[in-house]
Amino acid sequence: MLERELLGFINENRLFGPTDRVLLAVSGGLDSMVLAELFHRTKQSFAIAHVNFGMRGDESDADAVFVQNKAKAYEVPFHLIYFDTVAVAAERGISIQMAARDLRYNWFAQLNEQHGYAGTVTAHHKNDVLETLLLNLTRGTGLAGLHGIAARQERSATDVIVRPLLFAAREQLADYAREHGILYREDRSNNDDKYARNRIRHHVVPVLAELNPGLWQILPRTIERFRAAEALVLAELNRSWATIAEPIGPQQFLPANKLMAQTELAFRLAEWLRPYGFLADQVTQLIESLNRPVGQVFASTTHRIVHDRLADGRIGLLLEVLTSASGYEVNLSEWPDSPLHIAGQFILTVDVVEKTTAFRLPTDPKIACLDADLITFPLTIRTWRQGDRFHPLGLNGHKLVSDLLNDLKLTRSEREQAIVLLSADQIVWVAGRRIDHRYRVTAKTRQIARFIWQNK
Amino acid sequence: MLERELLGFINENRLFGPTDRVLLAVSGGLDSMVLAELFHRTKQSFAIAHVNFGMRGDESDADAVFVQNKAKAYEVPFHLIYFDTVAVAAERGISIQMAARDLRYNWFAQLNEQHGYAGTVTAHHKNDVLETLLLNLTRGTGLAGLHGIAARQERSATDVIVRPLLFAAREQLADYAREHGILYREDRSNNDDKYARNRIRHHVVPVLAELNPGLWQILPRTIERFRAAEALVLAELNRSWATIAEPIGPQQFLPANKLMAQTELAFRLAEWLRPYGFLADQVTQLIESLNRPVGQVFASTTHRIVHDRLADGRIGLLLEVLTSASGYEVNLSEWPDSPLHIAGQFILTVDVVEKTTAFRLPTDPKIACLDADLITFPLTIRTWRQGDRFHPLGLNGHKLVSDLLNDLKLTRSEREQAIVLLSADQIVWVAGRRIDHRYRVTAKTRQIARFIWQNK
Repeated sequence: MLERELLGFINENRLFGPTDRVLLAVSGGLDSMVLAELFHRTKQSFAIAHVNFGMRGDESDADAVFVQNKAKAYEVPFHLIYFDTVAVAAERGISIQMAARDLRYNWFAQLNEQHGYAGTVTAHHKNDVLETLLLNLTRGTGLAGLHGIAARQERSATDVIVRPLLFAAREQLADYAREHGILYREDRSNNDDKYARNRIRHHVVPVLAELNPGLWQILPRTIERFRAAEALVLAELNRSWATIAEPIGPQQFLPANKLMAQTELAFRLAEWLRPYGFLADQVTQLIESLNRPVGQVFASTTHRIVHDRLADGRIGLLLEVLTSASGYEVNLSEWPDSPLHIAGQFILTVDVVEKTTAFRLPTDPKIACLDADLITFPLTIRTWRQGDRFHPLGLNGHKLVSDLLNDLKLTRSEREQAIVLLSADQIVWVAGRRIDHRYRVTAKTRQIARFIWQNK
Repeated sequence: MLERELLGFINENRLFGPTDRVLLAVSGGLDSMVLAELFHRTKQSFAIAHVNFGMRGDESDADAVFVQNKAKAYEVPFHLIYFDTVAVAAERGISIQMAARDLRYNWFAQLNEQHGYAGTVTAHHKNDVLETLLLNLTRGTGLAGLHGIAARQERSATDVIVRPLLFAAREQLADYAREHGILYREDRSNNDDKYARNRIRHHVVPVLAELNPGLWQILPRTIERFRAAEALVLAELNRSWATIAEPIGPQQFLPANKLMAQTELAFRLAEWLRPYGFLADQVTQLIESLNRPVGQVFASTTHRIVHDRLADGRIGLLLEVLTSASGYEVNLSEWPDSPLHIAGQFILTVDVVEKTTAFRLPTDPKIACLDADLITFPLTIRTWRQGDRFHPLGLNGHKLVSDLLNDLKLTRSEREQAIVLLSADQIVWVAGRRIDHRYRVTAKTRQIARFIWQNK
């Protein structure tokens, strides 16, 4: 039954051809072990890849052996790799979760290219789709958070990901595993995302499924409607942007009169400007500025917008890239959830984590660990100014930023482009150089804000 | 605090003016009693209206007295009405829930007009919005199910509904009630919708709120984004319909070549044709028909679409109203959730309910109660044909439909336009006349399908 549905789904969605060999991503959990068994029983041509993220010590190693033995039993090629995810995350200044995902999919793409596999196969199913949708709703989302997971995703000609179990709910996979005596290993890791997902899986989804026993039949249609609606919205946003934005050299000019004539201006502007790093609150202020005299300036970490009057007298918003670190200043009203590109020269990554006993202070001055609860918003990121002073870590009392920069024997341009981070009006970090003593992590610290500074 | 926020919200959203008198809809529950107290303490000019739906006997009467006493204490005008909701629902052939809503809002509109109130005020808050969104998601929805509740809704110049508590979460209202010793009555009614809502309220929302303590801050932005996205989708659907649909007399012609050039055709066609009663499955078939020879016909209960070739040789879909009951035939693949308009002449309302001990068989032949579990889809609604036979209720054996119609001494046109309902290929009801014996409600029946037949 499940086997026939699988073949039907692969065919209907043209996931891959009948003679293609594909690469199954198998963690050893229920979903991917059922995936492998289904592919084996339906006589697909496949290989198995397993990633050991080394985050659960012996258990991770046992998972790898478990999957390897299964590949032997199926007599299919087996690929294994070990990643030091924590180190990579720290090195690249991204979250562990993001590092794990990147490492995994990049390796799969390499294997596909080297061995001529037609694509990577993952075991995502309907429950994953609903859980993700509910997680996104909980955290705040646009339409993009509702559109589900594509059954076939071509990231490039050689980097294809297919998800042939999207027609199935987890219960069907569990039934199949019981029926065929399929063994699998439970992942006991408990990172933040997994914790939230587990809460939704065990406490929210069962209630919804009880209220509508037809939920799993209806869900794909609902998701498909959201996906199509999103496509129409994107098309409409592109169409209207093209009728409004005028390139003026490297800048984009948005005439005020054309903006004001748009329906749903706040939504449009927020969507248009999001790729340039502007936040919803700024868009609200931008729209208000249109009714006031010209001159107001709004900055994201990469761009700025000036409410301006052109030489020909027309008034509107002028969007331009921020390229110089001198005179740079932006304000953040919340913790950013992706790396910030600063003036085209630096990347600042921020994450806030619980302090655990495993925590060690970093020695690299490019990484600042501060007490998150002491930090007050807005968080300002700006070029240092004459007269700026702070309380350097370990020093008894204040020091001028200019003195610190002199002590460090920087080049003139390094000195000029030095950036400081401020919590309200106190400097908490001379970026990449020295943190402020008052914001250091102490025994009382509960949450750590970790800042990583990199040159581009 | 809550009082200041209320005034701010009324002002910002221009719900009504400072000297306007408004009509509070007060059930006696937590939300509306807090609403009344807030309006009293902030010195708004208001009256109170209470509806006794008579569905919970003495408890309903006690609610009415309770609210009346409160109005006396506030020294504000009090309006009370009693509706026999069950009777009205049966009479109009609509669900009890729909009847209750219609009766309520129509009466409020009347009061507003008679007494010069600036609008009806309801106590809807953020939790209502989230609960509705989750209910809609569970039951299957488009964007319309996500867009929340408008703070101000003008149904006509004299029929305005405002919802000034949309800024607040239920917990804030409960805190306020505790703080100010506000009494309220619990509604113990347990209709289907309320049951589902309570499950979501008590079991789903708390989990989501625990996962993101900022949920109530983020929710309004998320909802606003969905609302704006929906507006853009509707604008785009209207724009593209206008470029495609050509009126030909009373018909609309959709040229196949223009249809095929549309992105997201399935979504567009489903949205365009929904007002004409076509279902998603039919749209899938319609699109497939475009690749086949002309001639296929698709019918909703009110319209039909022919895949046709025009006199000028162009091929496309021709949409037209079904006006005659002779030769009428449509198939339903699921229970309809709104009344069906049949051939411009009849209205068929269907609802499926649990059989309770209170159930009494209706005596009106225009109402058919059948055993829902015996009915097989598709359910066909069509003009009777020579040779049609069924097993009339109470009769031992079969009878020709033509004989029944003769026995009933109908006019020629009544006879010609008689409609039958079929479960798969068995007639279950000669509509408005006689049900089939095999589908009657028996002691074993668990679910009742109730059909109400009305002339237009």
